Amino acid sequence: MSGARAPGSSPVAEERLARAALTRVFEPGDPKVTALLRDGGAKGLVIGLAGRTDPPRGFTASRWQGLRARAARARPEQDLEAAARVGARFVCPGDTEWPAQLDDLGAARPLGLWVRGTVDLRMWALRSVAMVGARACTQYGAHVAGTLAADLAERGWVVVSGGAYGVDGAAHRGALGAGGATAAVLACGIDRCYPAGHAQLMKRIVQQGLIVSELPPGEHPTPSRFVVRNRVIAALTRGTVVVEAAHRSGSLVTARAAQRLGRHTMGVPGPVTSGLSAGVHELLRAEAHLVTDAADVIELVGAVGELGEERRGPVVPRDLLAPEAARVLAVLPARGTVTASDVALGAATVTDDAVARLYELQALGFVERHGDGWQLTRQAVQPGFSTSDAL
Amino acid sequence: MSGARAPGSSPVAEERLARAALTRVFEPGDPKVTALLRDGGAKGLVIGLAGRTDPPRGFTASRWQGLRARAARARPEQDLEAAARVGARFVCPGDTEWPAQLDDLGAARPLGLWVRGTVDLRMWALRSVAMVGARACTQYGAHVAGTLAADLAERGWVVVSGGAYGVDGAAHRGALGAGGATAAVLACGIDRCYPAGHAQLMKRIVQQGLIVSELPPGEHPTPSRFVVRNRVIAALTRGTVVVEAAHRSGSLVTARAAQRLGRHTMGVPGPVTSGLSAGVHELLRAEAHLVTDAADVIELVGAVGELGEERRGPVVPRDLLAPEAARVLAVLPARGTVTASDVALGAATVTDDAVARLYELQALGFVERHGDGWQLTRQAVQPGFSTSDAL
Repeated sequence: MSGARAPGSSPVAEERLARAALTRVFEPGDPKVTALLRDGGAKGLVIGLAGRTDPPRGFTASRWQGLRARAARARPEQDLEAAARVGARFVCPGDTEWPAQLDDLGAARPLGLWVRGTVDLRMWALRSVAMVGARACTQYGAHVAGTLAADLAERGWVVVSGGAYGVDGAAHRGALGAGGATAAVLACGIDRCYPAGHAQLMKRIVQQGLIVSELPPGEHPTPSRFVVRNRVIAALTRGTVVVEAAHRSGSLVTARAAQRLGRHTMGVPGPVTSGLSAGVHELLRAEAHLVTDAADVIELVGAVGELGEERRGPVVPRDLLAPEAARVLAVLPARGTVTASDVALGAATVTDDAVARLYELQALGFVERHGDGWQLTRQAVQPGFSTSDAL
Repeated sequence: MSGARAPGSSPVAEERLARAALTRVFEPGDPKVTALLRDGGAKGLVIGLAGRTDPPRGFTASRWQGLRARAARARPEQDLEAAARVGARFVCPGDTEWPAQLDDLGAARPLGLWVRGTVDLRMWALRSVAMVGARACTQYGAHVAGTLAADLAERGWVVVSGGAYGVDGAAHRGALGAGGATAAVLACGIDRCYPAGHAQLMKRIVQQGLIVSELPPGEHPTPSRFVVRNRVIAALTRGTVVVEAAHRSGSLVTARAAQRLGRHTMGVPGPVTSGLSAGVHELLRAEAHLVTDAADVIELVGAVGELGEERRGPVVPRDLLAPEAARVLAVLPARGTVTASDVALGAATVTDDAVARLYELQALGFVERHGDGWQLTRQAVQPGFSTSDAL
């Protein structure tokens, strides 16, 4: 790739492009990247990779050589185009869609996220819970994950998981089945389907939710990528629920990452005769909260924070909303509830899009979900919250 | 009954007899008894019940009348004889067999305990764990209770429960099946079999362990007697494990009593889809430790206290042992293990009796159980511990 400034592009756009290129060069979560970015930013690092033959401090010659070889093959414009073709975009720190809570990861903060789907990642993440667990889960685990996810979605929470077989899949399906919101954070490119058997599920997630990855289009998953991906799930969400995990399971890594980041760590108990509950019980004995249903989860994750259950009203004024969200908001009556399909009809869009916007508006404090109905919050109908002057 | 002193009886014997009589007069756990005993002791109270027509402070005339009527019908000598006929005795505060930890119950301390079986209640209670739970337990609950009790018994712990159907029965059977020690604390007389379906089980418990009750022979269980009985189970043991309990279950009462008494409160988790685990999960969220096996339980109950895992040697000298226990102890070789049946052969007794004595000796720090074998503790083989002079 070239480090030269493209004609007409702004420094911000150049920095984005450089960050997109770097997602092809460095493995996710590499803490050395942050140090390298400190000097000349992403663009400076791209230029350095192109021209500097002697390795910077902390890098061996062979490692630097390997990174330079990757950088030489990086084509960020093509990656951005490939992403756009599947309805994805690249979100980086500083963007309005960047979830600020990822900054808690410090040096291991992602360079950026490739995001596929129509809704706003930042808004959704504000009211999200991670559900993780065994791939080879039992019927009990699948049942609990599905029910819990459905109930959380029903109550307006976004269910975040890893898109894998077992607990992850059951959680995504549970949320989707309740007409709710779900996001999958993958350990491969957002245009790849891993596992292959989840092709239909991924399609539905893209339509109704979000697929997120640190890796650029086309990248394959590797064992270490699964591990480092877990920190993103933990950091993005208000808390992590583990449903079935054996001793030394990757799900426990996610839960402990959540714990270190000050997020709520929760576990669903199971039979002590089941090896797939042993890891959860280990976690419950050490640090996690025991949860048995959605109410238990919401009691924890909804209790504090600026957008929890206790919030008093919208955090952005009505006239600063994106046009799509504003159109959906305009459909909601001052009193009573409407269904998502009625909202879609009123806003001249499809139901999936209406649902996505409604979740965004819920995260912003404008609307609430009650079963199948949506209604304006008490605060949203007050005139004071209708324009930016009121703030 | 008569308050007059029987010819040849000592004041201590008279006080015992009076306490035995009072177990027929007052319901277990009545805190007013303690206040009444403060003045003239048990004998004084018996005399008062016989002669005093005006009620003492805190009693209505009709209640006092009712207690007097019960006292008039009490025949403690006959009760002691009835107890002796079924191999039982009356143990009261001050007796060497009285478990001092019951004093933690304060005003609700039992007047005394009717004890059926050949082993020493105090010794056994020092190394005991309570297991309680649902009567209508699931197969899972029965399996877990049985396995846990067997493993605890295997590792030398006495399993205490309430003799009921369900978890209680599974716990007693598990301990017995492992050739271990178990005690049932009943809400009826020690000569009654409640529930009737547990006749065979009770018979085996009497042979291999202990049946204990605050109520004199012949008394029937009542709902309130079950409730107050639970505090004895909680106080007698080092900790209480709840295996399956619905919300508002009596087992949770026992667990909370244990908690208030500073004992360890433990719960075995189960499927969140099972109503019979809901009470346990409630307890685990509030105050109890999550345990999944015998090792978890022993880690808690064995960690502290004068007779826990950390103890260094026998607490009484060898030459102060009861003759039966001394005979058993004399059989054990200086090195290596012997089975209980070999010990029985050597001590010229039956295996059940040998096992009972071995548990007593274990509580006293002389022997240890390893699977099916028994051996002297390292401290017990040191010459310094062989006589009372050494202490």
